[in-house]
Amino acid sequence: MRAVVMYAPGDVRVDQTERPTIVEPTDAIIRLAATCICGSDLWPYRGDDEVDHQPMGHEYVGVVEEIGSQVTSLTVGDFVVGTFFSSDNTCEICRAGYQTHCVHRGPGAVPGAQAEYARIPHADGTLVATPGMPDDDLVPSLLAASDVLGTGWFAAVAAEVGPGKTVAVVGDGAVGLLGVLAARQLGAERIIAMSRHADRQALAREFGATDIVEERGDEGVARIKELTGGLGAHSTIEAVGTQESMMQAIRATRAGGHVGYVGVAHDVSLPGEELFFSGVHLHGGPAPVRRFLPDLIQLIWDREIDPGRVFDLTLPLDQAAEGYRAMDERRAIKVLLTV
Amino acid sequence: MRAVVMYAPGDVRVDQTERPTIVEPTDAIIRLAATCICGSDLWPYRGDDEVDHQPMGHEYVGVVEEIGSQVTSLTVGDFVVGTFFSSDNTCEICRAGYQTHCVHRGPGAVPGAQAEYARIPHADGTLVATPGMPDDDLVPSLLAASDVLGTGWFAAVAAEVGPGKTVAVVGDGAVGLLGVLAARQLGAERIIAMSRHADRQALAREFGATDIVEERGDEGVARIKELTGGLGAHSTIEAVGTQESMMQAIRATRAGGHVGYVGVAHDVSLPGEELFFSGVHLHGGPAPVRRFLPDLIQLIWDREIDPGRVFDLTLPLDQAAEGYRAMDERRAIKVLLTV
Repeated sequence: MRAVVMYAPGDVRVDQTERPTIVEPTDAIIRLAATCICGSDLWPYRGDDEVDHQPMGHEYVGVVEEIGSQVTSLTVGDFVVGTFFSSDNTCEICRAGYQTHCVHRGPGAVPGAQAEYARIPHADGTLVATPGMPDDDLVPSLLAASDVLGTGWFAAVAAEVGPGKTVAVVGDGAVGLLGVLAARQLGAERIIAMSRHADRQALAREFGATDIVEERGDEGVARIKELTGGLGAHSTIEAVGTQESMMQAIRATRAGGHVGYVGVAHDVSLPGEELFFSGVHLHGGPAPVRRFLPDLIQLIWDREIDPGRVFDLTLPLDQAAEGYRAMDERRAIKVLLTV
Repeated sequence: MRAVVMYAPGDVRVDQTERPTIVEPTDAIIRLAATCICGSDLWPYRGDDEVDHQPMGHEYVGVVEEIGSQVTSLTVGDFVVGTFFSSDNTCEICRAGYQTHCVHRGPGAVPGAQAEYARIPHADGTLVATPGMPDDDLVPSLLAASDVLGTGWFAAVAAEVGPGKTVAVVGDGAVGLLGVLAARQLGAERIIAMSRHADRQALAREFGATDIVEERGDEGVARIKELTGGLGAHSTIEAVGTQESMMQAIRATRAGGHVGYVGVAHDVSLPGEELFFSGVHLHGGPAPVRRFLPDLIQLIWDREIDPGRVFDLTLPLDQAAEGYRAMDERRAIKVLLTV
């Protein structure tokens, strides 16, 4: 089968590889309907994370092709949405809603979903079947639910977004933009998107942003303070993962407010004294998308939300390298790969 | 009047100083009934914070001696408990329960409460009158409510302590011990106190600890994991403020769990990537004791809790220097100064 492999930073190829097979009786094999490139895939692409012949991709929707002998909740032919960490969804941590920390999860994200087929461990816990075969136009949104929507949603929940609240969103990538959408769905009164790109500003407004702040860093914080009577946002979504973005998020939030951070931290070190005196709540990490997936699938199925709008470039799997380049050069917010 | 002044690290004296007077119409002057030495006073005492002829003390109970023209909720002769940061208790931040971050609070803690008299800004917002003149035996507990009880209580609330939960407490000073008491009051199922001092272990058990862990650092974390089926505590109270104690608290907590940290951070730097993948909630800072004060006073008044047990040494104000020495040398958990 064909699969995307990152040989080295900047070197993405589509290889012929072995089609995966059932290894554990709890596995399923799915035939991908669509997959995509994640903002986090850019870390190794840019040389910020190590990479050496790595099968890529951890966002996926597709059709169940084969199931292991212990899989009970799925049948061959089901259309499923999965999440980037496999989880049994039965352990104490999963039941508390933190499936990304499942005690039986694998050592890392589900690998190799930018491919024709993928093996999904803990299929019963990891995959959620849609109510039926989706119309083609729903596929991008279901694919978004697999990671970026679920991650933006978790960030909004972690930031305790709710009615009457002012929300600031740091980061205008797909996750930040879908954090805006989540904040709107969760009833936020005011949503301030921090972005200096016209196309992303437009999509942020479409998803529910009421204000745009173009300034960054301390200037951006000052603008958020201006817009909130000097106090700062009640809830801030951080969707970048750098030192600057984390400090921007913490400083933009009022004492007693909540920062939900989902940008994978890179070279971040939080100064204890400043954090202490900020009085904010901090919560985040790898989003337990599985917690939200049934509800998100339903919202998409009912056409109440359209998170697939974040895909502004669609390419066939064979052109994955061009997809990486387009995201790296910020020519695309997020690239969908058809399989 | 007599007042405790720290001339330099290790050099504490009782000076004759000017008795304070009303400055703002919202001030009150109180005559101290009792005051005490805070664990945080040991930072400058040990040279870890700068200090130069600093009037000391920010924990106090006493009788209202004089009020400014705009003070409406108090009358001369009231017995009051106050908090270490003054707050108007009416601004948006105060109303959200974060009085330590009041938009009108002063530049630092209420200074100079280790004295015969003290000026309290924003008296209406900062002070809470007791239901009447307290019996003498209630005074230590009311004094504890002024800071250490309220701080331990906030830590427990920030750590989302509640029924069915396992709570770990890092730090066996007065705040940590009263965090144990708070956790018990808030219904925790299991309370693991981390302490290697027999006297503090005994008091922790008296306050409600169900388990004691003597190990510290990574070994302490391993013991907490052992006691919690490998998962870690649901809620961890951090009451020290060092790098080691913060990491111990974070690592002792399960994914999705809560760390409530109230030890004033000193040279703490939190590694972003580890924090991200820990999946914990982090909340803390200078405790908004004022939020809890009415309820805590009532619990003490009704003799349902006895937080004054943390005072294991009582000295007259004139012997403040000996009190500092006793706490510095860990001969005393907490020193009460009679005025």
